[in-house]
Amino acid sequence: MSGTIGVLGGMGPLATVDFMRKVIDLTPARRDQEHLPLIVYSVPQVPGRSACILEGAASPLPAMLRGIRTLAQAGAECIAIPCNTAHHWYDELARESRCPVLHIVDAACAAMERRAVGQGPVGLLATTGTIAAGIYQARLDRHGYDCVVLGARDMEDLVMRGIALVKAGEMEDARALLETAAAKLGTQGVRAIVLGCTEIPIVFDGVSSSSVPPIVDATQALAEACVEWYFGRAGRAAESHG
Amino acid sequence: MSGTIGVLGGMGPLATVDFMRKVIDLTPARRDQEHLPLIVYSVPQVPGRSACILEGAASPLPAMLRGIRTLAQAGAECIAIPCNTAHHWYDELARESRCPVLHIVDAACAAMERRAVGQGPVGLLATTGTIAAGIYQARLDRHGYDCVVLGARDMEDLVMRGIALVKAGEMEDARALLETAAAKLGTQGVRAIVLGCTEIPIVFDGVSSSSVPPIVDATQALAEACVEWYFGRAGRAAESHG
Repeated sequence: MSGTIGVLGGMGPLATVDFMRKVIDLTPARRDQEHLPLIVYSVPQVPGRSACILEGAASPLPAMLRGIRTLAQAGAECIAIPCNTAHHWYDELARESRCPVLHIVDAACAAMERRAVGQGPVGLLATTGTIAAGIYQARLDRHGYDCVVLGARDMEDLVMRGIALVKAGEMEDARALLETAAAKLGTQGVRAIVLGCTEIPIVFDGVSSSSVPPIVDATQALAEACVEWYFGRAGRAAESHG
Repeated sequence: MSGTIGVLGGMGPLATVDFMRKVIDLTPARRDQEHLPLIVYSVPQVPGRSACILEGAASPLPAMLRGIRTLAQAGAECIAIPCNTAHHWYDELARESRCPVLHIVDAACAAMERRAVGQGPVGLLATTGTIAAGIYQARLDRHGYDCVVLGARDMEDLVMRGIALVKAGEMEDARALLETAAAKLGTQGVRAIVLGCTEIPIVFDGVSSSSVPPIVDATQALAEACVEWYFGRAGRAAESHG
């Protein structure tokens, strides 16, 4: 078992690169050969996820299923999807996949527990599609967290505009909007703020900010889940043959 | 024709990420869907390229051929290899591939011509394997450039040690060594310095340095060749059907 991880990426392309960089940085490697084998399907010709959820526009599912099949054929033994909104179709994607598909919200919850974030209200910075589809709420609830989001006006003017600016490469303007969004959430008594859209940590990882509650970066959490899966697989293989 | 580019990467993993980032930054896109479709085989379990060339250690060719076949099967229509030393096996890899394989040295030469670097001596910062195998020399010669390299001692103490430190994640120490190497080459009357190992521009892109001749980053040049291939393919398709 080579432990190859398939990455269904391209949503967006920079978020995929940010995710790969985080996997590499988390891996205790001194040489190339000690790093995780990744096969990355970064094909961004996928209809917009939020537009489909909110407005019934063209579904991204067929394009994502093509990606899953390509990764399986290429030898993936585990799949990660560094796009939160894409997880609206998690069940369909997992059903198509012959190998396990890590869930980014489970990864984020595990990261919060590792950081001992106490139960209670947790702020979520994510696309309107991710929020409308309830991708985070039920899973957070299961871990004892209540999901707090910004109002419709701030979602449009700060979060969605910030995300679009990242995709357009306008990083400074994006950072200002997304930092403002985080600061507003931070005043609502939340125990942590989850960066639940993979475009956000490209420009704002919260490390430089001390005025807000702890930041949990879902991209980083998914990378942690990949590294854990990779180094844990030898043990699991031994168990299943034991 | 979807224009999917296959990337034979993982040598090393961070260099692959640097290459992808450069492709994205070069693409005039405002939305995800306008970016290039990439399928990236970043499987670093490939025997060391320099050790094979210099010491006759295990060949990386079988592992690289597996990568080429995987990329072809996944739908690649053009292949890029962001590892200079791997180009020692360019002919074998190109023969296995059903689609064109861009050559990183041709890309670097094209970048020098675009920047109007005059004919004459050009410094090369690359692995001892790349230099011993003559990957750059003949192609530079064809463009009227003479290849100047550092002596054996500087190659070991500065260049090879710097590259190994990048692979080990020790970026500050790596940068100091590689900047010193570039500065030494810069005193030898060269018209440009080619960063001919994809680990080098991860820590030293020459932008901050004004005391050396122009720096040509082969990774950036390969990314430029990919973007040019992608946007040029519609015209070529029309011609071939004309």
